[in-house]
Order: sequence, then structure tokens, then C-alpha cells
Amino acid sequence: MKVLGIDPGLVNMGWGIIIADGSRLRHVANGVIRSRAGSLAARLCDLHAGLVEVIAAHGPDAAAVEQTFVNKDAVGTLKLGQARGVALLAPAQAGLEVGEYAPNAVKKTVVGVGHAQKGQVEHMVRFQLPGVEIAGPDAADALAIAICHARHLQGRSLRIKVVA
Amino acid sequence: MKVLGIDPGLVNMGWGIIIADGSRLRHVANGVIRSRAGSLAARLCDLHAGLVEVIAAHGPDAAAVEQTFVNKDAVGTLKLGQARGVALLAPAQAGLEVGEYAPNAVKKTVVGVGHAQKGQVEHMVRFQLPGVEIAGPDAADALAIAICHARHLQGRSLRIKVVA
Repeated sequence: MKVLGIDPGLVNMGWGIIIADGSRLRHVANGVIRSRAGSLAARLCDLHAGLVEVIAAHGPDAAAVEQTFVNKDAVGTLKLGQARGVALLAPAQAGLEVGEYAPNAVKKTVVGVGHAQKGQVEHMVRFQLPGVEIAGPDAADALAIAICHARHLQGRSLRIKVVA
Repeated sequence: MKVLGIDPGLVNMGWGIIIADGSRLRHVANGVIRSRAGSLAARLCDLHAGLVEVIAAHGPDAAAVEQTFVNKDAVGTLKLGQARGVALLAPAQAGLEVGEYAPNAVKKTVVGVGHAQKGQVEHMVRFQLPGVEIAGPDAADALAIAICHARHLQGRSLRIKVVA
């Protein structure tokens, strides 16, 4: 199963794709889509076009997007919300179910604790995807989201197997 | 000039189209796109598909989206932000420049005061678009946004004429 993880942002949108084969994970690709300076609408167009390209190039079977951290900065929350809308839209348009995970859930799955530092997440991503070259912090977060989603899907299918 | 106004919302997205011919305005169509109950990503898909359909059917020359009111409810702001991202994306993908207006700016242009009541906005929309049938409150807001954008574009072209 090929899993796409997306770390939404209005200027930099991280993405990462892994293959989950039983309990084994393998890195496929990762990167950062950068929207060009311009109007908000034009930035959203760039992000959508970039995601459509990634999905067409790699044909993932599942996708997941980080749940935006809702903080006290309402303007920042709104901006991120707009980018996140596009991050959810593109895979759904391709017929994929889109999982959503809070940052703490991602950290808990990838590192083992919910309040891990940024550096720890990247370290564990490298450990679980040996030899991976990471395009930047947003791409590392996106790979972590993909790993989290893959682990959850595996858990689900294991439970289904036990029941059946 | 045919102007599309959009009032973004995750469940109900209002839209309205008018024609501005000099200082005269004429109603073309209005409606509300309702997203089906389901995942957030599926709702955003519905909204995007609905807007694409409206744009294809009417071929507007310009578009404007209401600036989301950033209030103290961060979860609500985030939800609206996601819907707003899709509302900005669809017209931009069709090559339209997308204007943005704060609710108070819309009220000021349509009613004359920035803190008008909801009923007053709809009343003035009806007054400026004689004979219009309005699909609901969200469609009335969308028509108000279209009127506001048309007035601003006219002001801009008048200023250009004076300069030239």
C-alpha cells in the first residue's frame, strides 16, 4: 500500500510518500511544494496544482493530512485553514479517503511520545525509512504523517484479520 | 461585466452572479451549494465541484469572496478557512482574479453603513436587483458581495478614465 502524507502550509506544503508492505516501510519520494508570492487565491492554485502533480506521478492508495494546530492566533489559523482545505481537496478529488491526525497523534505513533521535539520526529523518520533523503522540515513532517497513517491502517487490517 | 460573489461556508456556500453595465446592475442567478454529510474532505469536494459547475454555466469575468470573520472560536475559524480555501481556489483556477472584502466593507457599499443588520443587506440587494428571487440568506450575502465588487471595479475604471 502506497501512502501519501501532507503537512499543510500556505507557503510551503510538505509531502511524502511511503510504501507499507506488512510491517515493513519503504520510502518512495518526498518534497515541498512552494507557492509563488502573489494573491492568496494564486497561492492556493499553486498548492493544488502541485498536489495534483504529486498524486498523478505516484498514484498513492491512501492519504493523510495533519490536523492544523488551532492556536490563539486567529489570522494564522485562518491562513492555515485555507491551505488545509486545498490539502484535503486534492486527494479526495482523486478518489482517496483522507485520514486526519493531530500533531500529537503523529508524534506518538512515530516517536512513542506525544510531546516529542521536532528533531526527534525527523530522527525517527530517518530510522524507519533507512537511507531517505529529506527535502526539508515540512517534508519530514509529511513523511511522519504517512508513517502514522500506514501504522493505523495496518492496525485496522490486523484487527479485521483477527475478527475474520 | 459579469461578477460572481461567493459567501463561503462548509455546509452551505452561497453564490450570486450579476451583470454590471455602467452604473446599472442586473441579476443573473443565485443559489446555495450544499455539501453532503460526510468527511471534511468529501464536503470540500462537493463545494469545489459545485463552484466549478456555476463558473462553467455562467462564465463570470470577475469574482469576489467574503473575508471570513476571524472571531474567538478557533475551531469555527479553521472550518470556515478550509471552505474559504476552496472558494478562492475554484475561480482562480478558471483564470479569474479574486477580490476579497471584509463583511463591513460589503455592508458599507451595499447599505451605506458598516454595521447594517442582515435584513437590511437583503433589503438593499432586492432594491438594487429589482425582481430578484433569492435562494436563501447565504445567496443574499453572495449577491451583496458581487454588488460590492462590481461597485469597486466601476470605481477603479472610473478613476482610470479620469486619469487617461
